[in-house]
Amino acid sequence: MIKYFDNCATTKADEQVVDIITKYQTETYFNPSARSSFSLNIANDIANARQKIAKLLGATNAELVFTASGTEADNLAMLGTIRPKSGNVVLTESEHSAVFNTAQVLKNRGYEVRIAKTTTDGHIDVADFVSKVDSQTVLACFMHVNNETGAVNDVRTINALVKRANPRTLTFSDGVQAVGKIPVNFASLGVDLYSFSAHKIHAGKGVGCLIAKNGVRVNPIITGGGQEKGIRSGTEYVGGVVALATAVQNAVEKVAEHTEIFQQYKQILRNCLAKTPDWRENCTENCSPAIMSLAFRGIKGEVLLHMLEQFDIIVGTGSACSSKNKQSRIAKAIAMPLDYTEGILRISFSKYNTTDQVQLLGEKLAFCVEQLRKTMHYVTE
Amino acid sequence: MIKYFDNCATTKADEQVVDIITKYQTETYFNPSARSSFSLNIANDIANARQKIAKLLGATNAELVFTASGTEADNLAMLGTIRPKSGNVVLTESEHSAVFNTAQVLKNRGYEVRIAKTTTDGHIDVADFVSKVDSQTVLACFMHVNNETGAVNDVRTINALVKRANPRTLTFSDGVQAVGKIPVNFASLGVDLYSFSAHKIHAGKGVGCLIAKNGVRVNPIITGGGQEKGIRSGTEYVGGVVALATAVQNAVEKVAEHTEIFQQYKQILRNCLAKTPDWRENCTENCSPAIMSLAFRGIKGEVLLHMLEQFDIIVGTGSACSSKNKQSRIAKAIAMPLDYTEGILRISFSKYNTTDQVQLLGEKLAFCVEQLRKTMHYVTE
Repeated sequence: MIKYFDNCATTKADEQVVDIITKYQTETYFNPSARSSFSLNIANDIANARQKIAKLLGATNAELVFTASGTEADNLAMLGTIRPKSGNVVLTESEHSAVFNTAQVLKNRGYEVRIAKTTTDGHIDVADFVSKVDSQTVLACFMHVNNETGAVNDVRTINALVKRANPRTLTFSDGVQAVGKIPVNFASLGVDLYSFSAHKIHAGKGVGCLIAKNGVRVNPIITGGGQEKGIRSGTEYVGGVVALATAVQNAVEKVAEHTEIFQQYKQILRNCLAKTPDWRENCTENCSPAIMSLAFRGIKGEVLLHMLEQFDIIVGTGSACSSKNKQSRIAKAIAMPLDYTEGILRISFSKYNTTDQVQLLGEKLAFCVEQLRKTMHYVTE
Repeated sequence: MIKYFDNCATTKADEQVVDIITKYQTETYFNPSARSSFSLNIANDIANARQKIAKLLGATNAELVFTASGTEADNLAMLGTIRPKSGNVVLTESEHSAVFNTAQVLKNRGYEVRIAKTTTDGHIDVADFVSKVDSQTVLACFMHVNNETGAVNDVRTINALVKRANPRTLTFSDGVQAVGKIPVNFASLGVDLYSFSAHKIHAGKGVGCLIAKNGVRVNPIITGGGQEKGIRSGTEYVGGVVALATAVQNAVEKVAEHTEIFQQYKQILRNCLAKTPDWRENCTENCSPAIMSLAFRGIKGEVLLHMLEQFDIIVGTGSACSSKNKQSRIAKAIAMPLDYTEGILRISFSKYNTTDQVQLLGEKLAFCVEQLRKTMHYVTE
């Protein structure tokens, strides 16, 4: 059986989720925009899902726009909202590709893109970030949880500082690794825009969501039949959306419980690696319980990953969402000692992991590092 | 049991399809962009699905881009391809909202939009269309099968005429109601761009596809991790894509068989309505076998639709993809006698319909029309 520790890349869908998806494709498969009362019922199911998610995340119904991915939600947040024809956009290098590369689109459209610093553990350097915001800043992007190190940014504080520097600046936080993993309340965070993805929290692939604060006008990036109040056209993936509501509920209600369990998992791994020299934990303070980013000196993370595969253990190296860039932008940004940079392993937990699985991972990890270093005649620091 | 005759709006997913979608979300749920060999297998499954679909539709692997909907594919075709900074775009009023409304986006970007005529049965008026193409035409859009009347346009001929008028004009055909319903061979149609949707052919909701001819550069409208060769970012909805390949195969291989059956269905309905006065079939020549658009004089299509619902029969009135516009652009475009315009009913078949269901539909249709007309003291023409 697979021991899956790459839950930041994607997760196994809950049984409840696939049952819902199946139901809406084989029984109540009607198009919610059609005229029959059967279709009206489907439209109501979407409305109920919207209400449920809004309530769980401290938003209102009208603030939610369903998309096909977190990436699409990020694009919509950044490309659909800016009104001034010129200005600057502030973000950090540690943003997910969906945000970082979309900033390049804004650059091509004539906006200046300002890159703020990242601290050594993957947090946003708040002072540097806020210093880049000025009267011409049209958009500020600061992710909630870094997808590679797990660093949790203080979105509420950053938002307040950005708004103090320029109240007209739109603020956007990518919450893809936050929703369902740490407490999230949209209203209390205060940002104008917030995005998340379904498949990171045991809901289906092919569904994302943008939360846009009441009053923030969002222009569509996909036009057509006018679904989602004209903000996002295309026949609704009904089952995916209804299942998302269930998955958000399952996740949000268990955040405290899972936090405690995942912290224990981290401790198990630390214990297993107690006798292994020259490794580091890339983020220890204000870190997501679900993510443990490690780096092993002198070792290639990818080699370690494939060795662990022999034991049916799956881990990650960095962002899985950006297969093409072999070198991690974030590994560079966090200014890690060079001989550790290539040895990054990202372990990310889910509710489907067990203590036994984590213990096995820890033992095999220590074993593989030792084996690899033996073959390379490794000399400790 | 529901008798479902709105298969142009959406379809019931095949059992095979939901099994595949479930498998890729609960067993082999790995992110195809991650580093493990398990993920590599998933990436291969997508590659195989791409190859299968390409082969079935006369395209090559590299020409396919998976999206989240037909609408997104239409948007990508129209917004991602035009190189000149100015020029005109030619289309007809009978295009689907996903194309028609996206042309308005191009208009807002400074392109001139030229609307060609539609014939009385919903076909593109080819002479008028081609006459609008000139040296400044950057894009010509001509849908394959009209989603309201079923009119099948001669895409191959229109394409040749457009290319003769201006070889640099990009040609795009929306094939959402064509793929799996009539024979489609991308290479032989000759267009530069072609789109279709999964949920219209018993595959899952949340999946679409753009076919872009080798050599036609497509810029992304959604940027991020660089999936789909950088043309469409966002974690792949793997199950949806793999299931699409199966659904395309199931549909394409049975086109001839279903054509024959659906023509019989149409005849059954004609027979049932033989004694009903004052109705018309909106498209009889070069019409999709899967669509039968009817109009009943003096009756509101929506009232008829709700009456049929009492017998668990679901039909459509027009495009289900555009819930907000009560009045059909196409009904207006096809220049129907005014007292018929409001009485349009769209019946669309699938392989899950049976002769008995069609017979029942025909009888109930004749009955409902008679009842309605009685209550309104209808006088025949």
